[in-house]
Amino acid sequence: MKKIIKNGLIVTAADTYRANVLIENGKISAIGTHFDEDGAEIIDAKGCYILPGGIDPHTHLDMPFGGTVTKDDFETGTKAAAFGGTTTVIDFCLTSKGERLKNSITTWHNKSKNKACIDYSFHLMVGEINDEVLDELPQVISEEGITSFKVFMAYKNVFQADDETLFRTLLTAKDLGALVMVHAENGDVIDYLTKKALEEGNTDPIFHALTRPPEAEGEATGRAAQLTGLADSQLYVVHVSCSNAVEKIAEARNKGLNVWGETCPQYLVLDQSYLERPNFEGAKYVWSPPLREKWHQDILWNALKNGQLQTLGSDQCSFDFNGQKDLGRGDFTKIPNGGPMIEDRVSILFSEGVKKGRITLNQFVDITSTRIAKIFGLFPKKGTIAVGSDADIVIFDPNVERVISAESHHMAVDYNAFEGMKVTGEPISVLSRGEFVVKEKQFVGNPGSGQFIKRAKYGDELSEQGRESLQSTQI
Amino acid sequence: MKKIIKNGLIVTAADTYRANVLIENGKISAIGTHFDEDGAEIIDAKGCYILPGGIDPHTHLDMPFGGTVTKDDFETGTKAAAFGGTTTVIDFCLTSKGERLKNSITTWHNKSKNKACIDYSFHLMVGEINDEVLDELPQVISEEGITSFKVFMAYKNVFQADDETLFRTLLTAKDLGALVMVHAENGDVIDYLTKKALEEGNTDPIFHALTRPPEAEGEATGRAAQLTGLADSQLYVVHVSCSNAVEKIAEARNKGLNVWGETCPQYLVLDQSYLERPNFEGAKYVWSPPLREKWHQDILWNALKNGQLQTLGSDQCSFDFNGQKDLGRGDFTKIPNGGPMIEDRVSILFSEGVKKGRITLNQFVDITSTRIAKIFGLFPKKGTIAVGSDADIVIFDPNVERVISAESHHMAVDYNAFEGMKVTGEPISVLSRGEFVVKEKQFVGNPGSGQFIKRAKYGDELSEQGRESLQSTQI
Amino acid sequence: MKKIIKNGLIVTAADTYRANVLIENGKISAIGTHFDEDGAEIIDAKGCYILPGGIDPHTHLDMPFGGTVTKDDFETGTKAAAFGGTTTVIDFCLTSKGERLKNSITTWHNKSKNKACIDYSFHLMVGEINDEVLDELPQVISEEGITSFKVFMAYKNVFQADDETLFRTLLTAKDLGALVMVHAENGDVIDYLTKKALEEGNTDPIFHALTRPPEAEGEATGRAAQLTGLADSQLYVVHVSCSNAVEKIAEARNKGLNVWGETCPQYLVLDQSYLERPNFEGAKYVWSPPLREKWHQDILWNALKNGQLQTLGSDQCSFDFNGQKDLGRGDFTKIPNGGPMIEDRVSILFSEGVKKGRITLNQFVDITSTRIAKIFGLFPKKGTIAVGSDADIVIFDPNVERVISAESHHMAVDYNAFEGMKVTGEPISVLSRGEFVVKEKQFVGNPGSGQFIKRAKYGDELSEQGRESLQSTQI
Amino acid sequence: MKKIIKNGLIVTAADTYRANVLIENGKISAIGTHFDEDGAEIIDAKGCYILPGGIDPHTHLDMPFGGTVTKDDFETGTKAAAFGGTTTVIDFCLTSKGERLKNSITTWHNKSKNKACIDYSFHLMVGEINDEVLDELPQVISEEGITSFKVFMAYKNVFQADDETLFRTLLTAKDLGALVMVHAENGDVIDYLTKKALEEGNTDPIFHALTRPPEAEGEATGRAAQLTGLADSQLYVVHVSCSNAVEKIAEARNKGLNVWGETCPQYLVLDQSYLERPNFEGAKYVWSPPLREKWHQDILWNALKNGQLQTLGSDQCSFDFNGQKDLGRGDFTKIPNGGPMIEDRVSILFSEGVKKGRITLNQFVDITSTRIAKIFGLFPKKGTIAVGSDADIVIFDPNVERVISAESHHMAVDYNAFEGMKVTGEPISVLSRGEFVVKEKQFVGNPGSGQFIKRAKYGDELSEQGRESLQSTQI
Repeated sequence: MKKIIKNGLIVTAADTYRANVLIENGKISAIGTHFDEDGAEIIDAKGCYILPGGIDPHTHLDMPFGGTVTKDDFETGTKAAAFGGTTTVIDFCLTSKGERLKNSITTWHNKSKNKACIDYSFHLMVGEINDEVLDELPQVISEEGITSFKVFMAYKNVFQADDETLFRTLLTAKDLGALVMVHAENGDVIDYLTKKALEEGNTDPIFHALTRPPEAEGEATGRAAQLTGLADSQLYVVHVSCSNAVEKIAEARNKGLNVWGETCPQYLVLDQSYLERPNFEGAKYVWSPPLREKWHQDILWNALKNGQLQTLGSDQCSFDFNGQKDLGRGDFTKIPNGGPMIEDRVSILFSEGVKKGRITLNQFVDITSTRIAKIFGLFPKKGTIAVGSDADIVIFDPNVERVISAESHHMAVDYNAFEGMKVTGEPISVLSRGEFVVKEKQFVGNPGSGQFIKRAKYGDELSEQGRESLQSTQI
Repeated sequence: MKKIIKNGLIVTAADTYRANVLIENGKISAIGTHFDEDGAEIIDAKGCYILPGGIDPHTHLDMPFGGTVTKDDFETGTKAAAFGGTTTVIDFCLTSKGERLKNSITTWHNKSKNKACIDYSFHLMVGEINDEVLDELPQVISEEGITSFKVFMAYKNVFQADDETLFRTLLTAKDLGALVMVHAENGDVIDYLTKKALEEGNTDPIFHALTRPPEAEGEATGRAAQLTGLADSQLYVVHVSCSNAVEKIAEARNKGLNVWGETCPQYLVLDQSYLERPNFEGAKYVWSPPLREKWHQDILWNALKNGQLQTLGSDQCSFDFNGQKDLGRGDFTKIPNGGPMIEDRVSILFSEGVKKGRITLNQFVDITSTRIAKIFGLFPKKGTIAVGSDADIVIFDPNVERVISAESHHMAVDYNAFEGMKVTGEPISVLSRGEFVVKEKQFVGNPGSGQFIKRAKYGDELSEQGRESLQSTQI
Repeated sequence: MKKIIKNGLIVTAADTYRANVLIENGKISAIGTHFDEDGAEIIDAKGCYILPGGIDPHTHLDMPFGGTVTKDDFETGTKAAAFGGTTTVIDFCLTSKGERLKNSITTWHNKSKNKACIDYSFHLMVGEINDEVLDELPQVISEEGITSFKVFMAYKNVFQADDETLFRTLLTAKDLGALVMVHAENGDVIDYLTKKALEEGNTDPIFHALTRPPEAEGEATGRAAQLTGLADSQLYVVHVSCSNAVEKIAEARNKGLNVWGETCPQYLVLDQSYLERPNFEGAKYVWSPPLREKWHQDILWNALKNGQLQTLGSDQCSFDFNGQKDLGRGDFTKIPNGGPMIEDRVSILFSEGVKKGRITLNQFVDITSTRIAKIFGLFPKKGTIAVGSDADIVIFDPNVERVISAESHHMAVDYNAFEGMKVTGEPISVLSRGEFVVKEKQFVGNPGSGQFIKRAKYGDELSEQGRESLQSTQI
Repeated sequence: MKKIIKNGLIVTAADTYRANVLIENGKISAIGTHFDEDGAEIIDAKGCYILPGGIDPHTHLDMPFGGTVTKDDFETGTKAAAFGGTTTVIDFCLTSKGERLKNSITTWHNKSKNKACIDYSFHLMVGEINDEVLDELPQVISEEGITSFKVFMAYKNVFQADDETLFRTLLTAKDLGALVMVHAENGDVIDYLTKKALEEGNTDPIFHALTRPPEAEGEATGRAAQLTGLADSQLYVVHVSCSNAVEKIAEARNKGLNVWGETCPQYLVLDQSYLERPNFEGAKYVWSPPLREKWHQDILWNALKNGQLQTLGSDQCSFDFNGQKDLGRGDFTKIPNGGPMIEDRVSILFSEGVKKGRITLNQFVDITSTRIAKIFGLFPKKGTIAVGSDADIVIFDPNVERVISAESHHMAVDYNAFEGMKVTGEPISVLSRGEFVVKEKQFVGNPGSGQFIKRAKYGDELSEQGRESLQSTQI
């Protein structure tokens, strides 16, 4: 049955205007001032924005980590995402050392296919990049539709790639039309500082931050960017947390390099002092890179404003405080790294960004949805309100005031990192390919209804440029 | 009669998608996959892009200069603009020293109202900014809808404002919700170098460039940006020509200042060597700032790519080579400053930018239209393809190859600065508020059909932020 | 009679070594391990450094200012300087608007010749730089030995030069082998902010600082440096007070420009909060540029360390708190600008710089003496401990601890800006051309014994380069 | 017998003056205007400079490399050094993987003790830095007087240290008062590019340069500097060849880090095009980092001028063209890396630097001698002309014009990299601890007369700061 969304204000990455949206067969078939409402389900968006559904480019659902597994899986995670206004997630498919990529992708499909309530895709996160992995990549990219993969510059002796591996990966990505994502922290320095902290008996959560200084992130970010320039390739820096890294990304972009930067809501509103909370509560805020001194927040906001950072990911990777985070009592290195961010990502950027005048409403849409779709080959299927696009739509009330709390959130985890934070704005209803997942703040979705989305290549269907030229040849 | 544009690819600053556009009452009333074509005029855009009409933020039509007057007036100028894919111009209304702003605005309305073939608005260009001018401004802004005005840091003893005047103007603009535009060249240095060149008998056109070094533009740009920061105001730097100025704008933006930068097609594709052409032909390329050494072009392109420059103006200011430019034979300071750029602005950015992979198709639309509409308070009436917006639309064939030439251009001037340049892409048909101005490359417009558009304030209806909050309250 | 200084540690801008110094006829005639002491006066420097006398490049003695005159004249000022370890001052000779340079130089000779207890020279400080002044300059430089002159970018409608004047002066200086000194603050901005502050009833001393923001200094410094580059000339930026200016000087130097920077002890150890002292005591700290927020101090120290700033001047310009500074009660603009710094300049740099490990002992000598002598054409007559140089020598005890206070200082003024500050190190005895001025902390000098020193040109005898090539031809 | 040098112009890092120098017992015992010449050997320096002997901080004498050994050993190398005006070399003592430091030091003493004609010291160059090496270091530093050691960021799988090793080394150096030297090139990138070049059949000498791009040097330099900052340690970057590295050093120094930079004469006057010389002659110019495009030279000169680079080393590492360099015919990676630079280092800096006005005469002395002595713990025994210092003195004629050539040079190698270059200035006579090594251009020295010099710690006797405070306590 066709649906018509009326009385709302449509907001895209470029436009803000009042019109009605006609949905047929899961897609937006028309936008206009008046439609034949006969036989249509009418959705009243009075007082609300009509936004393209958020896309979360950075989640870890159902992921094993240090002997435990993240609390949120594809069911609870995507349900919470939907409540937060997100209609697509791109999750990291973990390939263990020596495992075939194909095999791990199958594992990840099994984790998600009967659980996801919204659409999803995968990045690859490879335990060790070697000749076998690089050989298997072309098939993964062309057949599996997985066109981005992450390289770690940290986690020495676990995931950490050396510079030759990073450089080869960048060259391979260029050839194959894929995008290299990088976790940019200098793992050697961190490894040393960590061992030394433990030797000196410094085991509290705050030492997680103190052993991962912003200089280590800045250095690695700059290094990755310079290798990207040498390789004439493309790079996406995940979870940028500090001024040091922003400077390096800006420097690269000002030289014309294809370097993109993502930050996360936690870095925009929380700071290093949270790790010092008593009673081991600091462990709730342990993830990598760590939270920074408060002054870094202004630099991150400003980089979003002027475009030196382009996207917002959640880096969702949730562990219960009780039973999981507390594995690290007496040894901060044993605290599972990560936090529950998938649900509040969009609302925090709206409330702290748009409402406080730091970014515009169109930028907000671009940062949480459109730009992500473009960078990762989902556009224009996802990421906008335009005729022909999937009807992934959020009805968003910009004026509701509410308090974030674990008591009311929809993630499976036992705490919320933003507990007690007041935000303005809330998703009221959320549609995925034209069907309600959340309706008037009630979950009406179905686990398993989410579909896996194959993504286009970077620089072909994938890039803005590539996609456009592709489409232009179709005329 | 309603019109339907079919079979084209709609391109906005954010989106690229295939759909039909329904035009009623001069506005876009719907965008969709299928419309009732009964009684509609069908426009076939097969093989073409459907673009929002270009907005030229920087023209000088019918403008007196040094005893002569620009060759193109509002009739020939706007006709040529339309042929080039531009549907709105913002022209500089010149107020002589001592003249009332109101009076000069009336003069400019008289110059334009029976001649313009497309819509237009005015910036103020004030001969001397003094207390009387600053007192008259609030009324001009609120009643006349003229919300931007230019300050000159060059042209000593003519237009040049001192720093206190610039600073006061920035403070006033902040209070009134207006935007200060600045011609940023250090006029003192230029005045000295010019006098010295003439004393030494250096009178050829090339000395126009040599006496206005890029350092003079860089210095003034940086100074204006720093005063903007101190005033917590907003600044638009017109006609950025060189690396020195780009650096200063980037530095300001990276600090979070509200500083915008415009470049022009001539700086992107021509260089200083043109001023050395024999037989006084160098005079055809005399304008301010002057053309620069070729390597500056890469810096400008890169700044458009990464967003450190945001817009493209033409700085249209045309004088015949014969009879006007040659007033400067034997004394380069007597050469009327300016060139005929209004017609080729859009095509050059498309051909050299999009086709050569320097910017994306969406960026092209943003740079030539959408961003300009947003900065100058015309959005969303102008600057996009969205329901409710004026049907200012260009049907653009991206694959036509052609050669720019004075023989085929539509400006009244006797030469073309891009003579012989091959470009790909051409506007086929152009609509202004739903009516054809150019149809299948033929002029079908009417002088006088263009309307004067009052613009919103900067930071109120004007700014993205302001406009959005305004609209959000209407819900 | 010859003198021999024994048992001390000789310190120069390059060397630190233990040897004896033989003085004959006012000059250093030998340095060695053992001398025939027969008939010699033996000076025991046990436990002390043997330093070249300090050179203060920036004093205002007996200077009229706003209806009053500085408290210290050439007698009290040079006596205090000697107590502080300074054996040469370069004072600013003020030429009023319209006055002949020659005339003002005669006035300054009259102020100094019977009073100075140490040697001295003059810079020119010209009320208005015009054609007459520029015409008179060659003679002043070659005959009077005054080879540096200051241009003001601040003090609108009083001393402020426009950019053309500054640019012409730079070009003239290049031609004549002179050095342009610049007071770099944007006077237009300051003038506006000052008027506005007074209009709003903000009359307290702190508004002196608030109306002269660091951005105004940074902007003007950058502008002066860029004009210097365009003119291919040389520039000395006086009294650098803030990070903003340091950045611009470093940027210029990194491009290879001949730009030098001087800071003052007050900017290294005092901060803006001093202007908020109650009971109008803030007026004691009113000078231009004003004191800055404390964090700027680190930047200044670091610039001394790495050579981006080269010299330390006192900007001595003393007014009594009672009877002079209080002219500004109720109107901060009426507070005479300046402070008493001539006596403590050397000791503060030693105590806060060398003793705290921020700079080396050799750098300390370079910054307070040698580099100044080289830049201003006094070297090697002044500024070092070397055979053939004037025996201007300070016996300095590096381990004395003492407290700076108006009760014990030797300036004529009724307060000390560093009152209560503990410093380590003190000049014990001071010789000028081989004669004691201070002996065992007692004044034994004679007013009028100081001689006027003609200085060499910049880039000829004056510059390091020039002087060296000159000497090399004499071999 | 005592010696007196007369009629010359003494030049130090700070001073330039005419005086006589008295030498007794191998040391400078006095400097003065007239000495008792009875029983003294008079050395006439008429028309000449009297300079402190040059110190070459970077030589590889008698060093095995890839199956061959450098042509110059301690006899020919130090003899050539002396002819070039150098009186001290600091050679790299190579410790193979697994070898005890003590053992390799003994080896190096054996190589040098009966051969060196001038004084010398050692740096450590350790094949693999591991726990054993770090444990042995304290003894080496305190007992052997070897207080600096080099870490390689290049030469993957041979010398290359990972970042943790570099970081640990920096921390150890800080604790022990030693100085870390770094060969800063990203070995991973270079290793990959090299393998790829060979795979593609690119075997000519020019590919040595093309596989070691300046970005690889800039990246590694920046990384080392950032790790130094994190470790709060000290770093000396050897053989800086390009703008990319200069920028990173300047950035670090502007933040106050203790980072020093050395360049070499070959980078100042030769460029990448030399590697393209026909008939395999390009191999003569193969060393690492490689020669760069010519424009980098200006950046290096400018960095010497403004102090961002501080020293000049030769990186002497000579191989015959015939029989050694030609091992790399058909495979550029087999070309022994290095060139014969020890003899011309001082003259090239004088001729191209001082004579062409790029640096001053005092800077020339500082860069080639004094600063090196201070950084490496040789000062004031070496590196200056001052009472108490070793009489290591060069009588230098600044006006001789000559042509550099293998036919006349004194190195044992069969070519000269500067063949045919005209230089002005030549060492005429050279004294080491008061004894002639070269007299009137004739070698009069004795192999084995050179002594090994134990060096002071960095930050204790070693650093300027440390040494000064040490001496000040002796007073």
